[in-house]
Amino acid sequence: MKAKTTSRSRSRNSNRYVVIMAGGRGERFWPMSREKRPKQLLTLLGNRSFLQQAVDRVLPLAPPERIFVITNQAQVAAVRRQLPELPRANIIGEPCGRDTCAAVALGGALVAARDPDGVFAVLPADHVIPDVRRFQRVLRAAFDVASRQPVIATIGIKPTEPATGYGYIELGEPLDGTGDDGRPGAVRFHHVRRFVEKPDLPTAQRYLKGGRHWWNAGMFVWSVSTLMQGLERHCPEVARAAAVWAGLRGERPLLSRLAEDYPCLTKISIDYALLEKADNVVVAEGDFGWDDLGAWPALARHLPPDTAGNCAVGDFLHVDAAGNIVFDARTKQRSLVAALGVKDSIIVLTDDAVLVAAKSDAQKLKQLVARLAEAGRHELL
Amino acid sequence: MKAKTTSRSRSRNSNRYVVIMAGGRGERFWPMSREKRPKQLLTLLGNRSFLQQAVDRVLPLAPPERIFVITNQAQVAAVRRQLPELPRANIIGEPCGRDTCAAVALGGALVAARDPDGVFAVLPADHVIPDVRRFQRVLRAAFDVASRQPVIATIGIKPTEPATGYGYIELGEPLDGTGDDGRPGAVRFHHVRRFVEKPDLPTAQRYLKGGRHWWNAGMFVWSVSTLMQGLERHCPEVARAAAVWAGLRGERPLLSRLAEDYPCLTKISIDYALLEKADNVVVAEGDFGWDDLGAWPALARHLPPDTAGNCAVGDFLHVDAAGNIVFDARTKQRSLVAALGVKDSIIVLTDDAVLVAAKSDAQKLKQLVARLAEAGRHELL
Repeated sequence: MKAKTTSRSRSRNSNRYVVIMAGGRGERFWPMSREKRPKQLLTLLGNRSFLQQAVDRVLPLAPPERIFVITNQAQVAAVRRQLPELPRANIIGEPCGRDTCAAVALGGALVAARDPDGVFAVLPADHVIPDVRRFQRVLRAAFDVASRQPVIATIGIKPTEPATGYGYIELGEPLDGTGDDGRPGAVRFHHVRRFVEKPDLPTAQRYLKGGRHWWNAGMFVWSVSTLMQGLERHCPEVARAAAVWAGLRGERPLLSRLAEDYPCLTKISIDYALLEKADNVVVAEGDFGWDDLGAWPALARHLPPDTAGNCAVGDFLHVDAAGNIVFDARTKQRSLVAALGVKDSIIVLTDDAVLVAAKSDAQKLKQLVARLAEAGRHELL
Repeated sequence: MKAKTTSRSRSRNSNRYVVIMAGGRGERFWPMSREKRPKQLLTLLGNRSFLQQAVDRVLPLAPPERIFVITNQAQVAAVRRQLPELPRANIIGEPCGRDTCAAVALGGALVAARDPDGVFAVLPADHVIPDVRRFQRVLRAAFDVASRQPVIATIGIKPTEPATGYGYIELGEPLDGTGDDGRPGAVRFHHVRRFVEKPDLPTAQRYLKGGRHWWNAGMFVWSVSTLMQGLERHCPEVARAAAVWAGLRGERPLLSRLAEDYPCLTKISIDYALLEKADNVVVAEGDFGWDDLGAWPALARHLPPDTAGNCAVGDFLHVDAAGNIVFDARTKQRSLVAALGVKDSIIVLTDDAVLVAAKSDAQKLKQLVARLAEAGRHELL
């Protein structure tokens, strides 16, 4: 699995692949999201699911046969239904969750099996990216850098608030030879000084002020060889498994081997396992309006508000209500939703559940889902 | 229509009638209540509608054939469906709304047509009366008084708060010969000094403290002759019409005459037209837990709350929600209602509408209904 880079494959970009990580759980957008219908499969904005939009965005960079989706076994069928344009075998269900290190290694193996000289992007399935053209330009630049040099090219997001829920990437010196061609909008890379785990609020405030720390959005581009070298050095156990996976042909042998190997792998994120230890990471700014849409209140950033700041999807009417998010996703018995005087609430309706929540408590939705589980309401999980 | 009181009819109480006033509109309990399904027809507490409960309560005092219901034409069919035990002709729809003076006069005429010596109670259709036995005892005492003397016997409610939404009855001297027989729970009457219109808050606070002012709950008992004499003196126009109505036999002649007379009658309440001017009004305390259930928040007084003070009818689960009223009246597609963090809200679900309201804004529900009308949503009115 050593890189045998040929100028031919590079010049045509036919060695470029995309691995979409679609293993999310279904809690933060309950009752829309469920165990078998997590956020990435939901269509909350526009008329395509987050996953479908993630695929749509990379189609100009890689054809369907070079796009992989890694999900869990329970969701494979739903993912395949949403993405009929992708070859069935490109959608792989992990036998159990082993965090992102195993999933990224699996992605690398899938790419390596097709092209040992492959360069691939790892991208989340459930983010919102308003400026798709800019995203594609930044991603293409990351592919270029990772094709030219043995680096891990990441995309960081300039903070707009002192968020404590993200990891941060600390910028080092500019990377020579990028972004300095003088063209407007050129993508400039920096060396990464270090990855920082989720900080406390004072630290996050300092980062916001300092301007040298960007959010880690979980987007990475690397060649198969760069990834594998990193894994061999920092997680040899995973590297060995990935090398075996890359040598298998056909879906069945792979799935059967994954079922054997996965339970033995350490549950660890790629950030902890590799990125924090690597010294060859570079970062470009992801200035394309990125939003990871962490919970219901975030939806308001992408829906047109009425004059009172209510964002509504569905038949909505109100008196003196303000700052609410109303989402009627019922298919069987839709009806008017009327609000009177309520402020900063979330009102969500599905065919089998109604949620009324205070925006300020949106982070506690997990507790509500846990309460449902305790109450044995498995049909609603 | 002069009273020809016979001791025979009195002793058997066979001259006792009840007229239930069921002309309310459908705004304060929207979306449950509608123009064609006003509050009195709703089943919000127990398994009988307010109107059905109003009839149930008086059955020990008067058989169905001596109970009349006065409603409006649009609601006659629904009222008859709810009260199959009443003779059809006892349920009369007014051709148009002319406030309570006309309705009471119509009630008097209906009774007079059966028994010129009749004594009858006028009672609202949409109140909550938890202590039915006490109510019956007080009402029986009012019948007794109004049978013995040419007085208007009303039932007042001792205030529990400085309410500004009710009229008040100021107590005078005790009425000789009532309540002084020494039995526990005997019903004592007072002369009424005067009726007071809805007061401002300082006045209401003074009333509450003083203990000489009771709420006017709109319950009156009088003989046909006492009512007619009062009307002849204070509203001769209405008295003349009522005398004609009392002389008609059969439903059709009456309805056709009402259609002719009603539009010409003054729109005025019986309080303004008669009670405030009369000098023969007596009052007993209605100490039976009366509640006129003015709006959604009042429902909490009659539903068992959970430990967080949420009152729920339907499948309800919450985390950190408190003081809410949840009412799921859907018949077609019921579902869980989950609340997260919301406080003091009203959540109501019907098959065709969802209401989420702040309790503190419940009085503004009329505005919401008006907004629906403006928006042409007549199917929801």
